[in-house]
Amino acid sequence: MSHAAETLDGWYSLHLFYAIDWASWRLVPEEDREAMVTEFNQLMKQYKQAQSEGQGDQVLYNVTGQKADLLLWFLRPEMKTLNEIENEINKLAIADHFIPTYSYVSVVELSNYLAGDSNEDPYENPHVKARLYPTLPETEYICFYPMNKRRNETYNWYMLSMEERKKLMYDHGLIGRKYAGKIKQFITGSVGFDDYEWGVTLFADDVLQFKKIVYEMRFDETTARYGEFGNFFVGHRLDDARLETLFKI
Amino acid sequence: MSHAAETLDGWYSLHLFYAIDWASWRLVPEEDREAMVTEFNQLMKQYKQAQSEGQGDQVLYNVTGQKADLLLWFLRPEMKTLNEIENEINKLAIADHFIPTYSYVSVVELSNYLAGDSNEDPYENPHVKARLYPTLPETEYICFYPMNKRRNETYNWYMLSMEERKKLMYDHGLIGRKYAGKIKQFITGSVGFDDYEWGVTLFADDVLQFKKIVYEMRFDETTARYGEFGNFFVGHRLDDARLETLFKI
Amino acid sequence: MSHAAETLDGWYSLHLFYAIDWASWRLVPEEDREAMVTEFNQLMKQYKQAQSEGQGDQVLYNVTGQKADLLLWFLRPEMKTLNEIENEINKLAIADHFIPTYSYVSVVELSNYLAGDSNEDPYENPHVKARLYPTLPETEYICFYPMNKRRNETYNWYMLSMEERKKLMYDHGLIGRKYAGKIKQFITGSVGFDDYEWGVTLFADDVLQFKKIVYEMRFDETTARYGEFGNFFVGHRLDDARLETLFKI
Amino acid sequence: MSHAAETLDGWYSLHLFYAIDWASWRLVPEEDREAMVTEFNQLMKQYKQAQSEGQGDQVLYNVTGQKADLLLWFLRPEMKTLNEIENEINKLAIADHFIPTYSYVSVVELSNYLAGDSNEDPYENPHVKARLYPTLPETEYICFYPMNKRRNETYNWYMLSMEERKKLMYDHGLIGRKYAGKIKQFITGSVGFDDYEWGVTLFADDVLQFKKIVYEMRFDETTARYGEFGNFFVGHRLDDARLETLFKI
Amino acid sequence: MSHAAETLDGWYSLHLFYAIDWASWRLVPEEDREAMVTEFNQLMKQYKQAQSEGQGDQVLYNVTGQKADLLLWFLRPEMKTLNEIENEINKLAIADHFIPTYSYVSVVELSNYLAGDSNEDPYENPHVKARLYPTLPETEYICFYPMNKRRNETYNWYMLSMEERKKLMYDHGLIGRKYAGKIKQFITGSVGFDDYEWGVTLFADDVLQFKKIVYEMRFDETTARYGEFGNFFVGHRLDDARLETLFKI
Repeated sequence: MSHAAETLDGWYSLHLFYAIDWASWRLVPEEDREAMVTEFNQLMKQYKQAQSEGQGDQVLYNVTGQKADLLLWFLRPEMKTLNEIENEINKLAIADHFIPTYSYVSVVELSNYLAGDSNEDPYENPHVKARLYPTLPETEYICFYPMNKRRNETYNWYMLSMEERKKLMYDHGLIGRKYAGKIKQFITGSVGFDDYEWGVTLFADDVLQFKKIVYEMRFDETTARYGEFGNFFVGHRLDDARLETLFKI
Repeated sequence: MSHAAETLDGWYSLHLFYAIDWASWRLVPEEDREAMVTEFNQLMKQYKQAQSEGQGDQVLYNVTGQKADLLLWFLRPEMKTLNEIENEINKLAIADHFIPTYSYVSVVELSNYLAGDSNEDPYENPHVKARLYPTLPETEYICFYPMNKRRNETYNWYMLSMEERKKLMYDHGLIGRKYAGKIKQFITGSVGFDDYEWGVTLFADDVLQFKKIVYEMRFDETTARYGEFGNFFVGHRLDDARLETLFKI
Repeated sequence: MSHAAETLDGWYSLHLFYAIDWASWRLVPEEDREAMVTEFNQLMKQYKQAQSEGQGDQVLYNVTGQKADLLLWFLRPEMKTLNEIENEINKLAIADHFIPTYSYVSVVELSNYLAGDSNEDPYENPHVKARLYPTLPETEYICFYPMNKRRNETYNWYMLSMEERKKLMYDHGLIGRKYAGKIKQFITGSVGFDDYEWGVTLFADDVLQFKKIVYEMRFDETTARYGEFGNFFVGHRLDDARLETLFKI
Repeated sequence: MSHAAETLDGWYSLHLFYAIDWASWRLVPEEDREAMVTEFNQLMKQYKQAQSEGQGDQVLYNVTGQKADLLLWFLRPEMKTLNEIENEINKLAIADHFIPTYSYVSVVELSNYLAGDSNEDPYENPHVKARLYPTLPETEYICFYPMNKRRNETYNWYMLSMEERKKLMYDHGLIGRKYAGKIKQFITGSVGFDDYEWGVTLFADDVLQFKKIVYEMRFDETTARYGEFGNFFVGHRLDDARLETLFKI
Repeated sequence: MSHAAETLDGWYSLHLFYAIDWASWRLVPEEDREAMVTEFNQLMKQYKQAQSEGQGDQVLYNVTGQKADLLLWFLRPEMKTLNEIENEINKLAIADHFIPTYSYVSVVELSNYLAGDSNEDPYENPHVKARLYPTLPETEYICFYPMNKRRNETYNWYMLSMEERKKLMYDHGLIGRKYAGKIKQFITGSVGFDDYEWGVTLFADDVLQFKKIVYEMRFDETTARYGEFGNFFVGHRLDDARLETLFKI
């Protein structure tokens, strides 16, 4: 794979989006609703044990607007574990009141564009490992969007030389660095797994930072010429109290 | 962010569109329907208190045509408050008869293309503040549409120099100024928040002015070459009496 | 608005398309079905009074194919009256068995490309008035489609000079004139009101004329280079007897 | 219409696609299911009388894959008769278990590109008449797809001269002729009637011939440069026995 | 067919995707659920006999993410047998809880780009026969996606000469060969049968290989310039035990 930039791949990733069917939820007696929320929350906590065991991580957010109500993002060492998790969630009693609205299948990815020439095995580099098998932040807000690199007639990312792409990605990375401390960014690769080539998941306590970084990057040639975007989702973190409030009628 | 035009950002914004499920609404006994409308109206009035407290604003319109029946537009100082409002509306008894059809997440935005060179903090400028944290008009009609600036192979807005964009936006603004007194325009930025880059919300008592301004601008190079539009929604204001009439069968 | 062609605007326009939910309709007892059809028909006749009062007009057609069953087209002096009509139709008992499939919001429009240089107020010209506030034909067939003028990279209608557009529209108009007596054509402008820029509504007793005119125009440069089309709908007129037959099971 | 190729137009055409709602169909008692299938089959046979009277024709196929289960294609001398047929089918008891998935409105069309210079009225030519008012084959398989001629910026079919189009269509026709005896092809024109410009309906006993002809034509300049395709549907003929088997649970 | 690359065609192919309607499935008493799963499994095993009889093959996978839950892929010597299989599955009691989400109709295809000049009948070549009438692998993971070759204005696959295409496909094939032993790839042709031109089905025990091969190929000119992709689906194999687990609540 001399022409393509080799990638480093970490945990498999599944973003699940559900809308809540409020009309049917309201028909459930309050006691049953509470039991269902508890069951859901307990399963989430059980999954969360993966984090302490170094076997993945997960977050839960309340999506703003009508594209979805819930965003669940799971990371696991094997793709098939994600299938199991998805099936288990769908079998929860509360899931009768979840309407699937979108999902994204990918794998945590570090591109090698910026790699040095050392002979070190990058998978043994502690910094790299921390990014391939990350502990997810618990910020107030999340942002997710999938994206492609364009293959237009004049501007075709995949026909650029390795050097050209390296240069463009380097400049692109400089913008990202300016947001260090404000935004935590996770790139997941989805070529061969889902409809776009990458998923971008951003975390921040100040939601405005999402707009600032995406807007600034849009003027960067990498994005301006070659970026192609899917839907954007933004959400607010559901801690235990907010989860309870959300489902309370 | 030397290349991009810096923006000034005000209140967060959520446009919610719902269709009414008339068939199920008709099945509700009249007394219950009245109670549900009252409950909805009271929540709206409670939210409206934000306006007098300088903590946001909101409007309610009846959309023409089958894209939706209701357009609710909320402005608030924090994104998470918009989540709360959306969740509360969805939990209303009347919402069992609302079908979500579209929504838009953004933030009130002033571009800095036309900014002077003064050292003044624009956020302290009273004129700027009035536009970032606006009191919304109560005109007869509303118009909403999302839009992008094109990134085509020949004409790519984001590859233009700051000077070129400034010049184009200046000419564009001249057209807008001709409609002062006839149309009130609000731009909300949605890069990183929703699928288009901006939302445009127009208010007028004479609905024809929406057509006139959008049509005239279409011949302006900024729009003709670089504008890309989503769906257009137009609606008629729902004051208390009309709201009652709308839900009366 | 020196660059754009100024338009003359007449009555506001709402095209409503509904599919009939035959499965639920069949469940209604025959007597109730008859009452519902009568109620629908009476409301239509009541609306039709607008015609004799010079306050608008309307037609009702049965759409061929599965895009819809009913096409209702209303013209009124004010946009808000169209909202009222749509709400009233949706509240009819029969509307429980109508599925909204498409709608179009616009205003009767005459372009000024072919205007002379006289100082006459065109709104006082009887010929112009008859076209802005028309009496709709009762032909056997109707055709509706929305359209845009393209803004491509090479061929961009809105970057052409007024002279170029005038010339193209003149040639385009010559084709239309050949169908005088066979087809009655109504153009409604929807810039700022709906997703396309214009709606075209054609009336003819010989349905084949729709194909002939649209096909011939496709070779005309205005259309070949700059025309962009939405969905095409064709329908057969529903007079009282056919309306009754349609809803009879 | 000197610039456009004049067309010869025959019977009006309606393709109707329905999926079967198997879950609701299973709930129907067997006896009632049999009665419904009989009623459907009898209506089809009644419509088929049009064939012996030279007043149209029809076929019924079972579509492969999930786009639909049934494809009904009707040809009739008048468009309004197609409306009546569609309405009658929708009113059948069995239609409660049909889900409309697609339809196509058009008219049997012969292009005049290959016409000679004789003064003969083509509508009186027996060969032409047989193609405009055809008896449909009863082959094992059917294929349907709608298509456009592209109007791109560089390659725009409708800006080509009559001579260029004639030349391209002649070469295109040569490929078609190679499949004589293997495939029967029907072109229906839908400009002004439906969303694409033409519908292509192919009949063959060997389903592989559909792939061979469409693939070979894709390398022909007419298609390679100017062809634009909608969805492809392929189906297997439903004779009486297979129709009964299909609906038997 | 001198211009086009002739293809060798084997068994007909049907990919069926279903989502499980968990809410309705939960309402089924456990005993009935078990009976339905058994009935489904038995039909699958009955179909699987085709494999031992050299009359086709099939696989069953659990799709990751919300595009579907089940992917069933069937190969058979005749297209009509695929119709029968699809109808039989839809008539299963368990299918009341299946929601069709996607399907793909095609035929196993070997392109002749790499063919030698021998006079041998390729259909008699044992290597070719094994690929046209394959035994499908039972790997842990599957990947499916449909694709086209682009016909853009500058880069149009179908306007390239046979030599150019041969060269591009040869280079393309070299990448594929690097994955021998890791991935088993099946190409099915769908020109004239379904909406894209080819379906690609990949099998691997290491799901990451799907990403690696598709990503590496994206930089190959054949794909970078001419490849156009539909939706990507990835799934985990459902053996008997996993099938039982999947449907167990």
